[in-house]
Amino acid sequence: MSSQKVEIIPLGGLGEFGMNMMFIRHGTSAVVIDSGLMFPDDELLGVDIVIPDISFLKQNRDQIRAVLLTHGHEDHIGALPFVLSEVNVPVYGTSFTLALAKQRLEEHGLLDSVTLVEVEPRQRITLGDLEVEFIRVTHSIVDAVALAINTPTGTIIHTGDFKIDPTPIDHKNFDAERFEEYGRRGVLALMSDSTNVERSGNTPSERAVHARFDEIFSTATGAIVVSCFATSLHRLQVVLDTAHKFHRQVVFLGRGMLQIYQLATEMGLLHFEPTLCVRPGSERLPPRERMVYIATGSQGEPMAALARIAVDENKYFKIEVHDTVIISARMIPGNEKSVLRMVNHLYKRGAEVYYDDGSQPPIHVSGHASAEELKWMIQTIRPKFFIPLHGEYRQLMRHAQLAQETAAVSHQIIVMESGDHLVIDQEEAVLLDKVPVGRVCLDEGTLEEVDEVVMRERRHISEDGIVLPIIAINKHTGALERTPEIVSRGFVMMDQNEELMANAGGVVLKTLEGSSLEEKTDQTVIRNKITRDLKKFLFKQTQKRPMVLPVILEI
Amino acid sequence: MSSQKVEIIPLGGLGEFGMNMMFIRHGTSAVVIDSGLMFPDDELLGVDIVIPDISFLKQNRDQIRAVLLTHGHEDHIGALPFVLSEVNVPVYGTSFTLALAKQRLEEHGLLDSVTLVEVEPRQRITLGDLEVEFIRVTHSIVDAVALAINTPTGTIIHTGDFKIDPTPIDHKNFDAERFEEYGRRGVLALMSDSTNVERSGNTPSERAVHARFDEIFSTATGAIVVSCFATSLHRLQVVLDTAHKFHRQVVFLGRGMLQIYQLATEMGLLHFEPTLCVRPGSERLPPRERMVYIATGSQGEPMAALARIAVDENKYFKIEVHDTVIISARMIPGNEKSVLRMVNHLYKRGAEVYYDDGSQPPIHVSGHASAEELKWMIQTIRPKFFIPLHGEYRQLMRHAQLAQETAAVSHQIIVMESGDHLVIDQEEAVLLDKVPVGRVCLDEGTLEEVDEVVMRERRHISEDGIVLPIIAINKHTGALERTPEIVSRGFVMMDQNEELMANAGGVVLKTLEGSSLEEKTDQTVIRNKITRDLKKFLFKQTQKRPMVLPVILEI
Repeated sequence: MSSQKVEIIPLGGLGEFGMNMMFIRHGTSAVVIDSGLMFPDDELLGVDIVIPDISFLKQNRDQIRAVLLTHGHEDHIGALPFVLSEVNVPVYGTSFTLALAKQRLEEHGLLDSVTLVEVEPRQRITLGDLEVEFIRVTHSIVDAVALAINTPTGTIIHTGDFKIDPTPIDHKNFDAERFEEYGRRGVLALMSDSTNVERSGNTPSERAVHARFDEIFSTATGAIVVSCFATSLHRLQVVLDTAHKFHRQVVFLGRGMLQIYQLATEMGLLHFEPTLCVRPGSERLPPRERMVYIATGSQGEPMAALARIAVDENKYFKIEVHDTVIISARMIPGNEKSVLRMVNHLYKRGAEVYYDDGSQPPIHVSGHASAEELKWMIQTIRPKFFIPLHGEYRQLMRHAQLAQETAAVSHQIIVMESGDHLVIDQEEAVLLDKVPVGRVCLDEGTLEEVDEVVMRERRHISEDGIVLPIIAINKHTGALERTPEIVSRGFVMMDQNEELMANAGGVVLKTLEGSSLEEKTDQTVIRNKITRDLKKFLFKQTQKRPMVLPVILEI
Repeated sequence: MSSQKVEIIPLGGLGEFGMNMMFIRHGTSAVVIDSGLMFPDDELLGVDIVIPDISFLKQNRDQIRAVLLTHGHEDHIGALPFVLSEVNVPVYGTSFTLALAKQRLEEHGLLDSVTLVEVEPRQRITLGDLEVEFIRVTHSIVDAVALAINTPTGTIIHTGDFKIDPTPIDHKNFDAERFEEYGRRGVLALMSDSTNVERSGNTPSERAVHARFDEIFSTATGAIVVSCFATSLHRLQVVLDTAHKFHRQVVFLGRGMLQIYQLATEMGLLHFEPTLCVRPGSERLPPRERMVYIATGSQGEPMAALARIAVDENKYFKIEVHDTVIISARMIPGNEKSVLRMVNHLYKRGAEVYYDDGSQPPIHVSGHASAEELKWMIQTIRPKFFIPLHGEYRQLMRHAQLAQETAAVSHQIIVMESGDHLVIDQEEAVLLDKVPVGRVCLDEGTLEEVDEVVMRERRHISEDGIVLPIIAINKHTGALERTPEIVSRGFVMMDQNEELMANAGGVVLKTLEGSSLEEKTDQTVIRNKITRDLKKFLFKQTQKRPMVLPVILEI
């Protein structure tokens, strides 16, 4: 590859939701931006997490100088343990981002073997041909940054996830000045967060939830439970401030909350009077109408604190009539049903429940830029090339349309998907052949890959069950040693369908009788014949298509 | 039961979404209002439809005078074939409602054996102690009615599903006058639709989508595809009108659309110039920029027309760049992912896609009353008792709160769930013991019930797969006839885990060797021992908990 060109290769997160990962190379100097995971669809049965296929990273291991992290959300750091165990390069990120990355690495016993380098916004680091500057942005998590990657061929801006919050809770402002400066100097390519492109206007400040919290706290007569993402320190700060204002004390519930509480207080990222927070289970709690519980489980995760509270299974807290529950988080698509099921349970126990139902003032605000902010970014940077980042295809397309409307992109708008291999210079952008990408499905227990074949089997069995004809054949004569027996699971109730099972045995027997000795002693042939005949019979009888798995024992 | 009291027993739809069914009795005169189905949650593996348990109806068969239908949506008529095959009573409904019910009954070969009685709004029928009046309401489907059930003890109003549309597409107005008249006379109990109680204000008229359709049609340069529910005649009329206005011709795609098109034109419910609509596959189609395709599949159902178009598998229509797709329907909770997946595919083929993303003017409006309309209903009827209808528990609770705010309910607001048995008279409401209710899961192929045990088995296998140790034992000596063999599906890749499988075989062998002859010849005992030991071994090795199903052949 000529050293006059920049290669941009998204390895995840473009054309899909989650597992964000981007590969940037100039000459032989390459960096990886973010290493995120994705939570699986329902159809990925038994899969707990999904990470990007990193075979391309492994092929280019020698050129990769660093992993650069934009912020600490799971869809940006969750695959880090898997990436670093294959490609052990230094990881650069801001303080809170690295603190969260450390937790992940510690869980995998990798902390001792990796290099983590903390950076400050506006800091610059040199990695071979590349000089990287970290630029502070605002987002739902603190300490988020965008990246300016200065190459000999030009500057690439990668926004990470952002919104433009004019009044951030932590007073750490969006660094518009740096973006403006880069815009003035000229930028080769802008890659920008597409998550909220479908929303018009501007995303409200994190501060917008204050009004609603005040309103709810001022009328609440019982205990208050608030659930949000544990990493949303802005939101936690609002809850702490409101609790203080209304003379309530605070207990954190759930492992994730307790971890973050400890981490954030150690790091000085949460601000409150020392007496405000009380340990769960403490015996010196004030009466319930002076308590606020901050709980994990805003997505209805069945083992998290709020879901346990909803079914009265939490050790430290029980809902009573007139208590108030606030779910201060977006329902992530796919989680709506479990969240609403939890809400129903909470109502049944007598709680009043507030959640993100579109009512105003908002109980939750998004961390991603809406259309007007996205336009600001494009207008400010005025890049030669524009590449929409982070989103499903429709969001990338809409972001491309938005960029078109701004008329601020001088050369080309390019909608890329994971695996696309783009090469740009000052003149033109060329797409080369795709690089290998894909989703690797992992089981949380073993962290081993769940094979596609195994999932297909689970899917098949989960539809109509499995039927096993058991056949014992004399290995010398090919004669049946006993009548074929049928066992099934997930198909029909065996005890209520004895006749069906007996007839199915008859079908197998007939197949065997109609087969030659040669066929009977060739396991592949006889298996296929039995499967075919039994499937046909079962479909005719039941309209179901269970998996048929003949078990043939040669005795 | 004293004849001075009315019994109200919801058999489905209260505290759950779908399968609406209500039992009302005075003395020995009973009616059933609606007989709906529910679409299953993802966790009901292999289940196609869910209907209410009707054992209570069977027990009270002799007293049931009729099934009264409020309108023709599946969650109100879908269980009719199953109810009528057990309790064959006359069915009363308006013209379009019965037309849809007929389709359902015909599919089950029941049309000849049932009595369907068409009624007009404001018509009254006498069923024993009960006199029923049908009152026209507006909803997303035409011909919807509420019911006034006049009993010797007082009047019960059941709203069915409704909104108050001041400008209905078909000019058949919401009959406010009748509700007002009943309100003046005095109503014992009001039961009212809770579906949209969480929305403030008023639901827009069906006419509100006109503006958006005009806007989209006026700028569209290619073909236009519109998808909505086939039964939404109002919406179809808007599409036909807009197509006419913009000089486009119309083709209906998908079985459901073609059926409704035929039905509605026969019944004179759709109004258009005879030349507007063209058969799919016709050779005399105008160029694509003068075409509108109306397609099934607004929920992303994989076999429906729009989903097939999205993956370029529809026989009659292919998306080209610059075509426009309009999905004019709500995404039903649980369907978001499949709808958005379809949208991504459509974008990839170059279409511009509009769907219900909250943008204004709306591309879809709801058929259910929002808070202000619900208040109007309660204020107008001013009942003694108020019972929120149709919704999950949180919606029923919110509707109860809303009723409280109106201060228009003189005696009591009662939040009931399916199975609750309420008895009311002019003075008081008493809850008796629950009646049997529940969900019956059906397989679409056989229409047979899917047993809870079978589903549990599917769920178990779908998580971690199934492992089958195959053991052949000599039935006389208890000796092993051959080495135990392990077969698995949906667990791990067998060929990549030969060692694990061999070791698992060893575990089984050890269990057998450690068992007495007596144990070995008692299938229950030896099965349990093998299952226990193998489960333990497999969990230790893989952190997975597959279903273990020993197959023991006595030779």
